[in-house]
Amino acid sequence: MSTSTEPLEIRAILFDFMGTCLDWHGSLLPHLLPLPSHPSYPSELASKIQSDFLLQWRQSYFDANTLRISHNLPVENIDVTHLSTLETLLLTPTYSPWSPSFTAPIKDSLIQTWHHQIPWPDVLPALQSLSRGPHELFVHANGSTRLQLDLVKAAGLKWIFDMLFSSQLVGVYKPERKNYEWVMGVLGLEPRECVTVAAHTSDLKGAREVGMRTVYVRRWTDDIHDDQEIIKRENDAYLENMEDLGKVIREL
Amino acid sequence: MSTSTEPLEIRAILFDFMGTCLDWHGSLLPHLLPLPSHPSYPSELASKIQSDFLLQWRQSYFDANTLRISHNLPVENIDVTHLSTLETLLLTPTYSPWSPSFTAPIKDSLIQTWHHQIPWPDVLPALQSLSRGPHELFVHANGSTRLQLDLVKAAGLKWIFDMLFSSQLVGVYKPERKNYEWVMGVLGLEPRECVTVAAHTSDLKGAREVGMRTVYVRRWTDDIHDDQEIIKRENDAYLENMEDLGKVIREL
Repeated sequence: MSTSTEPLEIRAILFDFMGTCLDWHGSLLPHLLPLPSHPSYPSELASKIQSDFLLQWRQSYFDANTLRISHNLPVENIDVTHLSTLETLLLTPTYSPWSPSFTAPIKDSLIQTWHHQIPWPDVLPALQSLSRGPHELFVHANGSTRLQLDLVKAAGLKWIFDMLFSSQLVGVYKPERKNYEWVMGVLGLEPRECVTVAAHTSDLKGAREVGMRTVYVRRWTDDIHDDQEIIKRENDAYLENMEDLGKVIREL
Repeated sequence: MSTSTEPLEIRAILFDFMGTCLDWHGSLLPHLLPLPSHPSYPSELASKIQSDFLLQWRQSYFDANTLRISHNLPVENIDVTHLSTLETLLLTPTYSPWSPSFTAPIKDSLIQTWHHQIPWPDVLPALQSLSRGPHELFVHANGSTRLQLDLVKAAGLKWIFDMLFSSQLVGVYKPERKNYEWVMGVLGLEPRECVTVAAHTSDLKGAREVGMRTVYVRRWTDDIHDDQEIIKRENDAYLENMEDLGKVIREL
């Protein structure tokens, strides 16, 4: 049992952002709903196809990053990746009938919508509470710094974090080992002083590989094809939301 | 005269940090005073020689950066630069008699003291007021990210800034043109949307050269050999402290 006289071990809490802290799905869906119904689907399934479309768009963004990593390509502006993955998705048989609805201004507007997301309801109280404690709190996520600056503002999370680390700043994507090593180097911290909190098993795998502790937060929008039982065994903690995050981190 | 219906032009306020926001001299002096008196100076001059020593140490840090820029050398950890400039200073005729007092633990402790500084008294109210306005506020300074994270905490300025930009992150020092261009690129801003606030004419010269607006804040500890009349003419505004900073920026 830890006591107040023991030295603090965990110094930094590194938060994945989209998915983990932010409800990207709930943020984008209202912007798709006004589009004309998909011609192959009855109108009562409009929200279902739009939801599926978003889940696939999100997955294709992850796939695009993974592909770039495997080809040793440099990090790309997330707006550019979001546009190219959207356009590819609209070429698939399922979504091509819908393609004429996605005019250039609508596509531009959707790309910008990723910069304005709402947090999951458990996030603000958990982060406010943690920010009053002894730890440093960081956004540690793929994407651009402009995206992260816009997101903390839109989500009401401005000034909660000590600093925002984007893959644009780091120069490589998570879960590449170099990404975590660069962040720890800049912070002057050892792996045992860091915990990564994410709704993505890949982020946590990268964190474990460098020796950080890991907390998985389950979000229905993310890791939708992963076996949750495996994830529960792999990480130091598994949470359904962030309500107990402070307690879990104190006990790591 | 600007009205509320006109588009906001200035979006980002970029603050130099040490010297401009922080009183490095007043922060370090108490850590030198307990050292044995310099053997060549009567004790009543103790604080004078210690103050001069600090001013020269600070200047030698600027000179070291300038030298690195002129030789196209990469940015260096500021702790390393502070140590090497301290050791060089202790080899000069003026300070070498004092050298035995600077044991290794004292030198290490002084290097760390640069991470714990107090703000000038006008800074906290000015920045708190600005942070409630429409602009984004950034630390934009040479040095390391660890230094800046420690300094915002020590100075009571945590969560005032939207983000901290160090030369370590940027990869080149101010006043190199590339430094400002990189920051504007990351922020997605044009020069006319940015104003640099600094107590260093060199920082502001770099900012002007890329087209930013500039506000000079006079601090007795910095630019001690510069002609203040020239500085007054060169910049969009010249202030004795930050009390009127908000007003000055609104009128730029």
